[in-house]
Amino acid sequence: MKQLALNWRIVLVRPRNPLNIGAAARAMANFGFRDLMVVAPHDPVWQETRSAVGAENIIKSAQAVDNLLDAIGDATIVIGTTSGSRRTLDRELMPLQELPAWLAARTSRRARAALLFGSEKTGLSNDHLSYCHALVRIPTVADCSSMNLGQAVAVCCYELARARAVAARPPASHVFLSDRADLHSLEHVFERAVHILDAVGYLKPKSRAATLVKLRRVLLDLGLTNNDARILGGVLAQIEWKLRVQESEARSQKSE
Amino acid sequence: MKQLALNWRIVLVRPRNPLNIGAAARAMANFGFRDLMVVAPHDPVWQETRSAVGAENIIKSAQAVDNLLDAIGDATIVIGTTSGSRRTLDRELMPLQELPAWLAARTSRRARAALLFGSEKTGLSNDHLSYCHALVRIPTVADCSSMNLGQAVAVCCYELARARAVAARPPASHVFLSDRADLHSLEHVFERAVHILDAVGYLKPKSRAATLVKLRRVLLDLGLTNNDARILGGVLAQIEWKLRVQESEARSQKSE
Repeated sequence: MKQLALNWRIVLVRPRNPLNIGAAARAMANFGFRDLMVVAPHDPVWQETRSAVGAENIIKSAQAVDNLLDAIGDATIVIGTTSGSRRTLDRELMPLQELPAWLAARTSRRARAALLFGSEKTGLSNDHLSYCHALVRIPTVADCSSMNLGQAVAVCCYELARARAVAARPPASHVFLSDRADLHSLEHVFERAVHILDAVGYLKPKSRAATLVKLRRVLLDLGLTNNDARILGGVLAQIEWKLRVQESEARSQKSE
Repeated sequence: MKQLALNWRIVLVRPRNPLNIGAAARAMANFGFRDLMVVAPHDPVWQETRSAVGAENIIKSAQAVDNLLDAIGDATIVIGTTSGSRRTLDRELMPLQELPAWLAARTSRRARAALLFGSEKTGLSNDHLSYCHALVRIPTVADCSSMNLGQAVAVCCYELARARAVAARPPASHVFLSDRADLHSLEHVFERAVHILDAVGYLKPKSRAATLVKLRRVLLDLGLTNNDARILGGVLAQIEWKLRVQESEARSQKSE
């Protein structure tokens, strides 16, 4: 298997129990992870988060942000975790132990990657999952599939460390045109596309949300590089411009 | 690798935090483990142990016992866990991920095995470790090697489940002469041997404890079957008898 050494960010989405944030940080420290982001924790949860043994630096540098995209940041590969027991998902879903080989086949060495964990009660929503390139399921038994959040983070960190899929040092800051585009850049492209789809009347109010989730997945699966994203963004900008021009022409003809 | 399906017992030695007992039970339930024993928990710790989600049956059938040997019960293979950072150990010490292959090479399918976890503060003592056939270390990073107990149990259970080293059903109750002797039978042999070593003056008061730890390890490493243990027990009984006869003869000669 190709040697991997990814720069991981662990993202906890709406955790409800401050003990679990500390527990997640400690497991990260145990296995050489450094980068923790928390999305929309209830305020008291975030205030009450105490530094866990050995994880002081992780908790100190962890950030709480409002939305998932900010938490994902400049990661170019996003993996969601799910117990996989409730929903039918249209993403690739693999057992955790197959993730290292999957990553080795698809990512470049030292890429930035994010691993998402949903809240203790509800897991990741379909909207959250639409930002993921793939989903992993910890291979728990069917009649007791839901894991404690801190333990789930520990098991995932162990598996990635075991497979040497964790970088020992922080990532270089260079970004190359041939690198995979990060989720932020892709979201800019996506927003442009949504704007156009609205303008041409493709999105119907009733199915809008579900359609956007599907389309975001299609975009992610293209595996665009930064160069691709730049070109596609340019194409979409041109279409947007043309639509706008045509509309204003049509309007001025009407008013004549 | 040979298919394994061992009957595991998880043994927590002197846990200090009742939450950790519940967390261990939940992780066990997640990965199909059923059998939990707790050695000498502080009384309030055991009283306060609450059933964890999905682990009600495990907690209900778990037992608290006074000493490690009773907790190990009829297991024929005993594995200790250690952070491995403080002591020099004379047992084979391997990273957790190598345990399944080690077991496959040494145990029979559906053997009974025990996995020991020490207390949160001190881990397993040298005396506890002397009951172990091998030790595993979860491959944590050097500068943060000590794991939370519940998370350590989760990671170990995951690794064993991943490698299909966990039996789906409880063990058969047949015991064959050609089976590996369980720790209880070996301890009977060992006690006989200690009796003889005391009688012949081999054990010196100062080094007694350390010597016994070493000798127990030697005995374990022999990998005796039930038949072997029976024969060896017979040999030792005969030596004990002869020593006793000679001593009483000597005594009666003196008094003549």
